[in-house]
Amino acid sequence: MQECLFCNLPREAVIAENELAFAIFDKYPVNPGHTLVIPKRHFASFFEATEEEIVALYRLLHEVKKLLDERYHPDGYNVGVNVGKCAGQVIMHLHFHVIPRFEGDAPRPGGLRRVKDPITPWEGEGEKSK
Amino acid sequence: MQECLFCNLPREAVIAENELAFAIFDKYPVNPGHTLVIPKRHFASFFEATEEEIVALYRLLHEVKKLLDERYHPDGYNVGVNVGKCAGQVIMHLHFHVIPRFEGDAPRPGGLRRVKDPITPWEGEGEKSK
Repeated sequence: MQECLFCNLPREAVIAENELAFAIFDKYPVNPGHTLVIPKRHFASFFEATEEEIVALYRLLHEVKKLLDERYHPDGYNVGVNVGKCAGQVIMHLHFHVIPRFEGDAPRPGGLRRVKDPITPWEGEGEKSK
Repeated sequence: MQECLFCNLPREAVIAENELAFAIFDKYPVNPGHTLVIPKRHFASFFEATEEEIVALYRLLHEVKKLLDERYHPDGYNVGVNVGKCAGQVIMHLHFHVIPRFEGDAPRPGGLRRVKDPITPWEGEGEKSK
């Protein structure tokens, strides 16, 4: 069994932490400041987190937002998790993606609907970007 | 000021709820079963939620997952929020997207990195899908 990347990170990679969670910059950022917020306990699925862990992760997400707001001044964020290989989860240790977004960084604003092509036409994002 | 769509939904649209949150099917689903999980209190940003609301939302996300697992048998999920117009948020009342994912529903598994083109090449998802 391959060792978990997130369970074996060097200490200096950690940019913020609390008792149950820590944060690192994504190695392949979608935008400057793309951060991962991760529970210290090893488990794969978002739905396996305890409520105590969810609160700790949420507190750390706030800290990370403050840090990113100060350093990168983004205009918005995408925050979320992939659950399962077919949903794009590559490392099987829960991690929240925190993606800072900037006005005009995509042809359309582009939200979570963009993870795959829709089955139903949806031009809402495009309409709003005009 | 336009009235909030989520504050004025017909009761019959609600598929699950608890004290602080409710769930509805997305009107323009990306995949079958695409659901929105929404706090009852009106506010725009994920970062404005109280910890009590976060726990209520998480509990409802579990209920919704159970319901969708039973009805649609997905292989995975994308779960997350858009914060701000430039991040793809169209309705300014916090909502979690819960997108059921199925093996082979996209050319590559496709996760949250796909909300915009990356600034750094990332073939991780593609590699895993081979």
